Amino acid sequence: MKLCSFATNGRASWGLVTDGGIVDLGQRGLAATLRDFLAQGDLAPAAALAGEKPDFAFDAVRHDPVIPNPDKIICVGLNYHDHIQETGREETPNPVLFARYAGSQIGHGQPLIKPLESDMFDYEGELAVIIGKEGRRISEADALSHVAGYACYNDGSVRDWQKHTHQFMPGKTFAGTGGFGPWMVTADEIPDPSALHLQTRLNGQVVQDTDLTLLIASIPRLIAYCSTILPLLPGDVIVSGTPGGVGARRNPPLWMRDGDVCEVEISGIGTLSNPVRNEG
Amino acid sequence: MKLCSFATNGRASWGLVTDGGIVDLGQRGLAATLRDFLAQGDLAPAAALAGEKPDFAFDAVRHDPVIPNPDKIICVGLNYHDHIQETGREETPNPVLFARYAGSQIGHGQPLIKPLESDMFDYEGELAVIIGKEGRRISEADALSHVAGYACYNDGSVRDWQKHTHQFMPGKTFAGTGGFGPWMVTADEIPDPSALHLQTRLNGQVVQDTDLTLLIASIPRLIAYCSTILPLLPGDVIVSGTPGGVGARRNPPLWMRDGDVCEVEISGIGTLSNPVRNEG
Repeated sequence: MKLCSFATNGRASWGLVTDGGIVDLGQRGLAATLRDFLAQGDLAPAAALAGEKPDFAFDAVRHDPVIPNPDKIICVGLNYHDHIQETGREETPNPVLFARYAGSQIGHGQPLIKPLESDMFDYEGELAVIIGKEGRRISEADALSHVAGYACYNDGSVRDWQKHTHQFMPGKTFAGTGGFGPWMVTADEIPDPSALHLQTRLNGQVVQDTDLTLLIASIPRLIAYCSTILPLLPGDVIVSGTPGGVGARRNPPLWMRDGDVCEVEISGIGTLSNPVRNEG
Repeated sequence: MKLCSFATNGRASWGLVTDGGIVDLGQRGLAATLRDFLAQGDLAPAAALAGEKPDFAFDAVRHDPVIPNPDKIICVGLNYHDHIQETGREETPNPVLFARYAGSQIGHGQPLIKPLESDMFDYEGELAVIIGKEGRRISEADALSHVAGYACYNDGSVRDWQKHTHQFMPGKTFAGTGGFGPWMVTADEIPDPSALHLQTRLNGQVVQDTDLTLLIASIPRLIAYCSTILPLLPGDVIVSGTPGGVGARRNPPLWMRDGDVCEVEISGIGTLSNPVRNEG
């Protein structure tokens, strides 16, 4: 099942994506937001409406980030060997975590915004994990049972601001830089996230391409580690890290520019596509 | 004017702190939360009720974090020379920023929780700035006009987890480690935050003591820098950094332990006091 968040006629809602379009589940009263629906702990009421006539063609709405209002967005850095190698850093026994704020996210089809302050705007294709069931100190064995679903993420990075200091966050949370979509695929359809394949394309050119089995800290390990720190809640998002091939480490560097189109495709999920626009 | 968040009989509310106690403003319908009230952009309706008979003695309620549900908590690291010196790090031209999640916060009088995973639980007394007016790319000259008020913060730090990797966040957002209170003092009473004085005490012993004029990145500079990245919203919290004297850098180290009491006092604001408890 594919679930998405969207807005139409100035009204924010969420729904179920079928071959024919979007069934508006917000309007049908299941919950005000997708996060609220996940918190109810039962996806069956959405699945039961899969046969309804769609309310909108998929392209007729403004797509919002899959979860527009997560309590936490936990980003993972340096989680593939080939990306660690290209950055010249060393592998750490524990995951590298930093935050992105919810206000920095955009949905499928919405522009990634190159801010006024930088010309070093980079892509990072990643698998996003969306939590469905609250938990603290979740064991790796139980971890996948806490996942509601998976989506594509473009962790758009303002590289000079990321390197203002040793802490990454400033370059990782500019407004309009976190693409999250096009929808989430529920976890029942993805029994093993390590079996997925991810590809990032800039203007059609493949710039990142990896099997998810190459993650250093697996999805269960990330869930166990993050939930040791504080409880994970329904709607929380773990953005699991990007593989090698980022623009900053190419020679010459490859930056995203006004008019570009960046896509993140993950097998079994779909393709997140965003145009790039200069701010202002 | 002093504004606080609290709970009583299982109901969360917020109110005005007077000499006689707390006037419950949530119950009087001004707004559901203090964050919502700040978003209304006018503090006068609260001030107008300062003469009301208090509903509760100040100590008769459970104190919640001043803003329990901020959109963003932006923490600043290494923002005093004496703290940079004790860590052996170098000063950076731009502020060092990392995040804390809202679920890690506690209110005045509530226990700071030493997690099961660590015996290296450290205090960090800091001035918290609470945003009152939304803005992006706020100039330093205008910055203080965007401040709703100020409070004390104890940025409780799990030092071994902070050093798992080069990114600080894991050690900075454990559940029950961010003390925020006892209230906010509105900005009209603090025209110049650099004139404040901060002291941290552990079991009555002074462990940190500084003038806020010693901040490397001033409050206006922090607001300008953070708001360049993405809009600051009413209720957002900037935790402005800790001075020298942290426990990790003492010889021998001074860790917070079960039964300790840690206080952060700031002139013109008041004293945040929290007992320390082992988890579980």
